[in-house]
Amino acid sequence: MAPVHVATSAGQYPIHIAPGRLQHVADSVPANATRLVIISNPVVDGLYGNALRQALADLNKPVFTIIVPDGESFKSLDTLNTIYDRMLSEKLDRRAVILALGGGVIGDMAGFAAATYMRGIRYMQIPTTLLAQVDSSVGGKTAVNHPLGKNMIGAFYQPVSVDIDIHVLRTLPAREVSAGLAEVIKYGLILDRAFFEWCESNVAQLVALDADTLAYAIARCCELKAQVVSADEKETGLRAILNLGHTFGHAIEAGLGFGTWLHGEAVACGLVQAAVLSGKLLGLSAADIERVRALVRAIGCPDIAPDLGEDSWLDFMQGDKKTEGGEIRYVLLPAIGQAVVQAAPLNLVQETLSETVGDIAIDRSAVQTRDMTATQA
Amino acid sequence: MAPVHVATSAGQYPIHIAPGRLQHVADSVPANATRLVIISNPVVDGLYGNALRQALADLNKPVFTIIVPDGESFKSLDTLNTIYDRMLSEKLDRRAVILALGGGVIGDMAGFAAATYMRGIRYMQIPTTLLAQVDSSVGGKTAVNHPLGKNMIGAFYQPVSVDIDIHVLRTLPAREVSAGLAEVIKYGLILDRAFFEWCESNVAQLVALDADTLAYAIARCCELKAQVVSADEKETGLRAILNLGHTFGHAIEAGLGFGTWLHGEAVACGLVQAAVLSGKLLGLSAADIERVRALVRAIGCPDIAPDLGEDSWLDFMQGDKKTEGGEIRYVLLPAIGQAVVQAAPLNLVQETLSETVGDIAIDRSAVQTRDMTATQA
Repeated sequence: MAPVHVATSAGQYPIHIAPGRLQHVADSVPANATRLVIISNPVVDGLYGNALRQALADLNKPVFTIIVPDGESFKSLDTLNTIYDRMLSEKLDRRAVILALGGGVIGDMAGFAAATYMRGIRYMQIPTTLLAQVDSSVGGKTAVNHPLGKNMIGAFYQPVSVDIDIHVLRTLPAREVSAGLAEVIKYGLILDRAFFEWCESNVAQLVALDADTLAYAIARCCELKAQVVSADEKETGLRAILNLGHTFGHAIEAGLGFGTWLHGEAVACGLVQAAVLSGKLLGLSAADIERVRALVRAIGCPDIAPDLGEDSWLDFMQGDKKTEGGEIRYVLLPAIGQAVVQAAPLNLVQETLSETVGDIAIDRSAVQTRDMTATQA
Repeated sequence: MAPVHVATSAGQYPIHIAPGRLQHVADSVPANATRLVIISNPVVDGLYGNALRQALADLNKPVFTIIVPDGESFKSLDTLNTIYDRMLSEKLDRRAVILALGGGVIGDMAGFAAATYMRGIRYMQIPTTLLAQVDSSVGGKTAVNHPLGKNMIGAFYQPVSVDIDIHVLRTLPAREVSAGLAEVIKYGLILDRAFFEWCESNVAQLVALDADTLAYAIARCCELKAQVVSADEKETGLRAILNLGHTFGHAIEAGLGFGTWLHGEAVACGLVQAAVLSGKLLGLSAADIERVRALVRAIGCPDIAPDLGEDSWLDFMQGDKKTEGGEIRYVLLPAIGQAVVQAAPLNLVQETLSETVGDIAIDRSAVQTRDMTATQA
């Protein structure tokens, strides 16, 4: 498959998508890199670290690995600081290159370390979760969380390459697959009605990780994301539509505590909530809202939001980065395949919350959407 | 005086230089700013905070002030974190604008907070020390220190404006004036022999803070820096020459502990050391080396370096951000007014150290270079 290219202010970079791509990552390493730093977590490093180091061996460049704890709660300034400590102790210079091997937590944090180490060094994204492959590894959004909000400290800082190996998804827990598919659906909803319908028709194969079906879906998502990022690298306009479902979703994550629901699960639920609000404000049809809800269910994600209490909901949404002058701005759907960003009257938001919040089990850790031996968790 | 303009990848920004400019800072505030955040330290806020807030009053925008402790040792990730905490608690959005009111420590740290808060918001530099006015406030280098090295964590992130009020220098301690003049001399050494000679001729007026002399010197430094930054925003080439004296200087600062010598004092000494090494490696004449030393003395800065021990010297210099593949790269002078960046044979560096290090008083806190009532310290 030909690489997808992302155009940015600093040039363009390629996204390589292929089964077994991990074995060919050396092709993406900049020739003048002095040293290579793999940043990963214990589980992913255990599964793919050696394969990656083997793939890099022929380059004859020193490689060392920094392992950080697994999970959203460790995507923090404290963990970042341990990365800085290691890199400075090793006297890594400005021509060192970071390789982010893992999901969104690793990619966001390693990317932010690259953005800020000695005022910026190069980094490569090697995403190992579906969510990271279709979304977070592309586009240069890097960040860590803060107790007062998710991704509040970060930078726009583009990688030099993204290398996506579809085979690594075979070790992904079912729950993570479902969470990743939420972002896949999102691209159809905001930009490509035909792709949304393709997802409806192929949802069984997607959930079952059929390689060809997945390869098509990942490539289409990367193409759509590359178009948006190339048009608006720093989210001054168009790019905000990529946050469909995220205003509600971030409130769920923050309200329950980061990591209780996976990011993609919270976004999936947020897609339903954004569709409901779109119905009230922009006339999205009841049938289309139902299609969104049905597809969210079909991928194994929650479509009923946790009851955080109305004040908490509004407070957490207020802290969203799209807020301007105290006004919460929502990504909304006039129709499936089209998105706009705008404020919404408080009463319609309140109605949306009352209709989408329910009495549900908050703990999703036992959820299994398909039968598999899951090890990358 | 017409503003100096700095061209960057994201457009250009003005540097306004005038006596009393503080009263006109409102002219530089972006029209669509939602809220204004002054970041300062207790001393500078006490001297100029109210004047600034008064100058902003007519804009009718909410203004709040974050005070951080004074001094290089507080230019840390910990202090940065307290800034994030305050900004997030206040729910500042992406259209908030930071005003950095202070010297280099405030400017670097407030700039880095702006670079990383919600992936980047706008900021204005209002430098109140000579060093910040001629150097650190222009060009978008932002950073905090790390126990293992100065300015190791940071970003290239340009301000939207720089407002320089020459009157505020009247409250600057003599030692700070001397330190700032070290960077003034630096511009002559690397880029403009005529300006270096002008400094030699006008050193008495500079040290005495004569307003017209200072205004010319500050404007010339800003012009020279703007040219370099516009040509090489992210220090991939030319811009590294601005670090003349800084490889040695950073070792002094790190070796003695940040804040023992002022940054400019360490750089001044580093200018002499770079000149001595330039003599050995590039044939800079003994007479020119002596002129550098004489001018460093005339501005009241140290020209003899502290004895850190050779291993410590090399170790601290090794950690410099210009190091590539383990090789320390020095900014050197083939002649006064010209600079190159290159490696140097170890034996010549050792000779330079042995000739420039001496038995000197490390404590410079009692140093006074002119008679004045100093309060901005």
